[in-house]
Amino acid sequence: MTDSGVLIILSGPSGSGKDTVLNKLTENRDDIKISISMTTRQKRNDEIDGLNYYFVSREYFEKKIADNNMLEYAEYANNLYGTPKAPVDEMLRNGKAVILKIEVQGAEKIRKIYPEVISIFLMPPSVRVLEERLRGRNSEDEETLNHRLVIAREEIRRAPEYDYIVINDTVENAVAGIETIINAERQKTFRNKKIISEVINNV
Amino acid sequence: MTDSGVLIILSGPSGSGKDTVLNKLTENRDDIKISISMTTRQKRNDEIDGLNYYFVSREYFEKKIADNNMLEYAEYANNLYGTPKAPVDEMLRNGKAVILKIEVQGAEKIRKIYPEVISIFLMPPSVRVLEERLRGRNSEDEETLNHRLVIAREEIRRAPEYDYIVINDTVENAVAGIETIINAERQKTFRNKKIISEVINNV
Repeated sequence: MTDSGVLIILSGPSGSGKDTVLNKLTENRDDIKISISMTTRQKRNDEIDGLNYYFVSREYFEKKIADNNMLEYAEYANNLYGTPKAPVDEMLRNGKAVILKIEVQGAEKIRKIYPEVISIFLMPPSVRVLEERLRGRNSEDEETLNHRLVIAREEIRRAPEYDYIVINDTVENAVAGIETIINAERQKTFRNKKIISEVINNV
Repeated sequence: MTDSGVLIILSGPSGSGKDTVLNKLTENRDDIKISISMTTRQKRNDEIDGLNYYFVSREYFEKKIADNNMLEYAEYANNLYGTPKAPVDEMLRNGKAVILKIEVQGAEKIRKIYPEVISIFLMPPSVRVLEERLRGRNSEDEETLNHRLVIAREEIRRAPEYDYIVINDTVENAVAGIETIINAERQKTFRNKKIISEVINNV
């Protein structure tokens, strides 16, 4: 029923389950799209260009920055990562709910460009559960894991900067929580101005 | 999961179906309560004190106003109508979603007392449908009906002052729309501060 799209920032600490929740969320909803990030880092064998990331050259990426075509970007380990503006704007024009999976710092930049953006913090049920999930991955040494937990606590302390909190106790609950927020936001008056005037004029 | 209640203003023109929708809404949800208005008018035979209204004397009502215990009130046809503050505050303290069914003017007063209140406008699918519904009641002469339609159009023009729009095309859709808004609002960060600190501390 909306006459415009909904832009959503989703943040959450490493291990909060962002990817699992987003995959499940978009499975059954054609009106919800995930923004694909752009990066200059090498594509890994199991990754697909245009699905996991847009893999581009540093020259191309820097041209995008110069042309004001990146919503936000950052450099990690000598590689650029960021959100290209054009695909987001096109999906919004088509009335989609567009989710940007970004860090707390990136979120601040987006708010300046799109004041109507809504932000969701995906919260683990407890730091203990987060630790168990990270250990379950079995892919990191103790030092890396402890570092991740320190960062996670810092991120959780910034959760009050977000509009909404969704607890990821189960994937189903988290997916339902995000869907509820999107459905409610679509009922916001400022996204339905066309409908109000249609109701008035359809006498 | 919220640590506080949610206060909701519901407005909508005569014939928009507020009562039908609210009855259905509270049938299955113990966490959603409708605030009962107070009035000095005579109880009709089919009305129940404490269910349709609190029926009180003018002296009692005026004492409530003097003691600052009315959230809003107005006089129609020599009778006072208004929303007593104490029951609303108690329901909010108990974590309920409390719905105030009030007019556009009353809504402004409530916003001043509770800045966190959210407002929903219940919208008929069209003015034509509204007219059909009012005619269907078969209880009013042409003049009264036309007057109601004039007022309804004025009210619909003020819909943009509300946070959310819910279209009452079917009772089921309208109930689902309001439930979605309440569920999303309960996920607002400022209503979940306790949970954030619990997650951080439950190490």
